Amino acid sequence: MEYREDQGLIMVRLHQDEDLFESLEGVCRACDVRTGVVLSGIGMLKQAELSFYVKQGRYATALFPEPLELVSLAGNMLLQDGEYKFHLHAVLAKETKEALAGHLSAGKVNVTNEIVILKTDIPALRKLDDATGLMALTFEQENA
Amino acid sequence: MEYREDQGLIMVRLHQDEDLFESLEGVCRACDVRTGVVLSGIGMLKQAELSFYVKQGRYATALFPEPLELVSLAGNMLLQDGEYKFHLHAVLAKETKEALAGHLSAGKVNVTNEIVILKTDIPALRKLDDATGLMALTFEQENA
Amino acid sequence: MEYREDQGLIMVRLHQDEDLFESLEGVCRACDVRTGVVLSGIGMLKQAELSFYVKQGRYATALFPEPLELVSLAGNMLLQDGEYKFHLHAVLAKETKEALAGHLSAGKVNVTNEIVILKTDIPALRKLDDATGLMALTFEQENA
Repeated sequence: MEYREDQGLIMVRLHQDEDLFESLEGVCRACDVRTGVVLSGIGMLKQAELSFYVKQGRYATALFPEPLELVSLAGNMLLQDGEYKFHLHAVLAKETKEALAGHLSAGKVNVTNEIVILKTDIPALRKLDDATGLMALTFEQENA
Repeated sequence: MEYREDQGLIMVRLHQDEDLFESLEGVCRACDVRTGVVLSGIGMLKQAELSFYVKQGRYATALFPEPLELVSLAGNMLLQDGEYKFHLHAVLAKETKEALAGHLSAGKVNVTNEIVILKTDIPALRKLDDATGLMALTFEQENA
Repeated sequence: MEYREDQGLIMVRLHQDEDLFESLEGVCRACDVRTGVVLSGIGMLKQAELSFYVKQGRYATALFPEPLELVSLAGNMLLQDGEYKFHLHAVLAKETKEALAGHLSAGKVNVTNEIVILKTDIPALRKLDDATGLMALTFEQENA
């Protein structure tokens, strides 16, 4: 893992076999990220896990063991109670150029990942939404 | 709809059944956006309409009534003659993880949408391009 | 090609038949980009070339002569030894709304491209990685 920060922008290079989420958590901690937005994420992932939300308590999750191109990575992360909570979606591509996409819940780096994160002080947090069972994005109340 | 703005960055949380374009227009108006760039957009959409430009006056448009994961949202919006003009493209994902993509012309939120917009003062505008029939992006002339 | 820069953000409009990489290189040179991150890229591409990295020295590359929607463009560019080195991945969409994706190595504009680039001073560079044969992203050593 290598990274550089400049004026609130963090450029990250991940290496072969590194865990995507553990690595991003390490970078966020090192750069003291409160809330981060993924501006760009490309490279290759293996052992990627893509999910589709079906209904409360039910996800359709698929594991892709083989290396796939990471073509788009979007979403955000935020620090809450000392832990980083990630919400990332990804587009992956097969050798045929067919695209696979969904909620990204796991993945390891193949060859390289180049990820750019923008830091912000927006007081985002996640709260359990009873209707969906999801940790939904919300914001700290002002003057609360 | 909930949102917070910090240093030109707007983080938006949309709720179940909200109209994507109406909601984004509301946020842009409230935050006084001149020109905005979508940095990130994830969640789920239903009743999404994806288009492909075939030739002047002809689009191949498809409506997807069922909920689909919103995996990537890209593009921009600008204020012109008191109205916001949007140009957004989206990648959506089915339960099978197959990806659908194209120009996004309509959609309603399913469960949640988390969208980040960057404000800029770039004097962008749209003008009818006779050759294509599209409202093409251009810029105000300097010193004009 | 038209573009405007404001506070480190460059908004670019490309026109019919312009070469994507040549045009972006021209914009980067004109705006004195050291390292740039693509925040957004939409429009249509023709003669697009998508690649998948198989192993050292072997890529699966496919040329798509027909116009396809450009739905997502992600990645970065950096100036090294007087030349811009690009690393871009793209999601393209067919009239059927099926998505194609991969490493983008060539493409010409169809109708329009609207691309937004963020400038940064991060001292990124690319070095040949012997194990993969790729020009891997790394950073200038501090105090070196």
